[in-house]
Amino acid sequence: MIEGNFADRLLEAVEAKRSFVVVGLDPDYERIPPAVREAHPRRAYDSEGEMKAACFDEFLTGLLDCLADDAVAVKPQIAYFEALGAAGYELYERVVRSAGANGYLVIADVKRGDIGSTAEAYAHAHLDAAGADAVTVNPYFGTDSLEPFFRRSREEGKGVFVLVKTSNPSSAELQDLELATGETLFERVATMVDAWGSRSRGSRGYSSIGAVVGGTHRSQGAALRRLVPGVPFLVPGYGAQGAKAEDLAGLFDAQGTGAVVNSARAILYAYEKRPGIAWQDAARSETREMKAALWRAAGRG
Amino acid sequence: MIEGNFADRLLEAVEAKRSFVVVGLDPDYERIPPAVREAHPRRAYDSEGEMKAACFDEFLTGLLDCLADDAVAVKPQIAYFEALGAAGYELYERVVRSAGANGYLVIADVKRGDIGSTAEAYAHAHLDAAGADAVTVNPYFGTDSLEPFFRRSREEGKGVFVLVKTSNPSSAELQDLELATGETLFERVATMVDAWGSRSRGSRGYSSIGAVVGGTHRSQGAALRRLVPGVPFLVPGYGAQGAKAEDLAGLFDAQGTGAVVNSARAILYAYEKRPGIAWQDAARSETREMKAALWRAAGRG
Repeated sequence: MIEGNFADRLLEAVEAKRSFVVVGLDPDYERIPPAVREAHPRRAYDSEGEMKAACFDEFLTGLLDCLADDAVAVKPQIAYFEALGAAGYELYERVVRSAGANGYLVIADVKRGDIGSTAEAYAHAHLDAAGADAVTVNPYFGTDSLEPFFRRSREEGKGVFVLVKTSNPSSAELQDLELATGETLFERVATMVDAWGSRSRGSRGYSSIGAVVGGTHRSQGAALRRLVPGVPFLVPGYGAQGAKAEDLAGLFDAQGTGAVVNSARAILYAYEKRPGIAWQDAARSETREMKAALWRAAGRG
Repeated sequence: MIEGNFADRLLEAVEAKRSFVVVGLDPDYERIPPAVREAHPRRAYDSEGEMKAACFDEFLTGLLDCLADDAVAVKPQIAYFEALGAAGYELYERVVRSAGANGYLVIADVKRGDIGSTAEAYAHAHLDAAGADAVTVNPYFGTDSLEPFFRRSREEGKGVFVLVKTSNPSSAELQDLELATGETLFERVATMVDAWGSRSRGSRGYSSIGAVVGGTHRSQGAALRRLVPGVPFLVPGYGAQGAKAEDLAGLFDAQGTGAVVNSARAILYAYEKRPGIAWQDAARSETREMKAALWRAAGRG
């Protein structure tokens, strides 16, 4: 099934919703609203994994129901589902389908990377079987490990976001290493991403092969935006990890587009900081504030 | 639960079984022996995923039953389980438990890498919940992304194998990049692995933080052995990917130890090249030939 260019679909959703917000689905049982946890007592389930999966299901369904006008995409972080075993994996697949049906693009945050035959199995698992619109991948193995994902990008309109500069404090250890050519490793990876995407540019000049660029590195992010103008950015690090909207201005292009920004914990657990209102309303308010702040940061507000 | 040092357990198993063989569990439905496939007709299951999981279960159980004398460890490649969805994930967890009960060390080949809070969820999923003895991880994020795995190594006797130089053809694109210091990137990563393991050396001088070093790069592998003498190697690439025992001699130390070698497809589907004998017998014969060839290559035969 050819579904058009992923970058076009993503950036059209940005214009339609006037939002750069991606909601990270990183469910943590200890922080699920107490009312949801109390509705699923351990004794009602065969295993702890099933009980937690039922909580996650109610919580995530509630969030998906109320954020579709304000978020362009959701990004399920599969680690939090895997941590519940098979019950969690089943929920992951259900959440991907349900989010798609609710009008979100779905970016499966799996960060997989392996040799070609194994990469084919991963690409099948997440883009075909689970049915996500895009995935995150790790570049350490090189081109042949990414080709199964790229093929689905060219032939089936899927998106791929390659790790370039991650948001965590230790990211400098490898990613900022200076090469003999004078570039940093992450700049070299960005240049490779640009080349990988040259066959899948959409009508807006952006490719379906994007880059993960942490919002926590202000000047490096802005330099990357200039280095690879045709590569869309998926930006983690907003909210709980410390990046603010004004730090991200340099990640948008001159037209005020080309990047989407993820926030997980700050939206999911917004109720913790907004006492007296329902958790869904708290998440919606947090999402709308983020949406407005980013729209301004991109020079659109 | 402190279970002693992983490197000690691994290298003691090598001596006890006189074997460096790790059997890669990469089940591929199209190559499962026809007799196994015929025993599980599609109509007997609710979904294709469940049917394939039942085939994989019978096939892998049959292999685990007959290779325990000759293989020190098994390495389930989770991509092939994920490709079946929740039924595959459930089988992955069952295979990890079953292999441990059958006297194999279990190296979960997951190659995960993510920011710290997410890495904690992955470490929990594979080392705590599934209960593997060791995992493979990707170094691109740096130290903070690996600390949840390292902590379980120090406190619970778990092992960690960090990708250093992978076996695939494109591995040179990033891993062989020359740094400003004159090292290659993979040499720098190897040096980091050595430092990460300095707190978990066992009685044989090897650390519980090991390196994945592809057997397909003969001279680079031997140079790595000299560079980081205390780092145990997990060596993929034998068999179907082309490495032969004589290519691997340089990966062992002067005592003829310090590395274990994985083969997946050449063992699992050995029956294809050995007509007229049962698939379990074919796998056992292949494993024993590999075992003997590696023992000689290590200078022990």
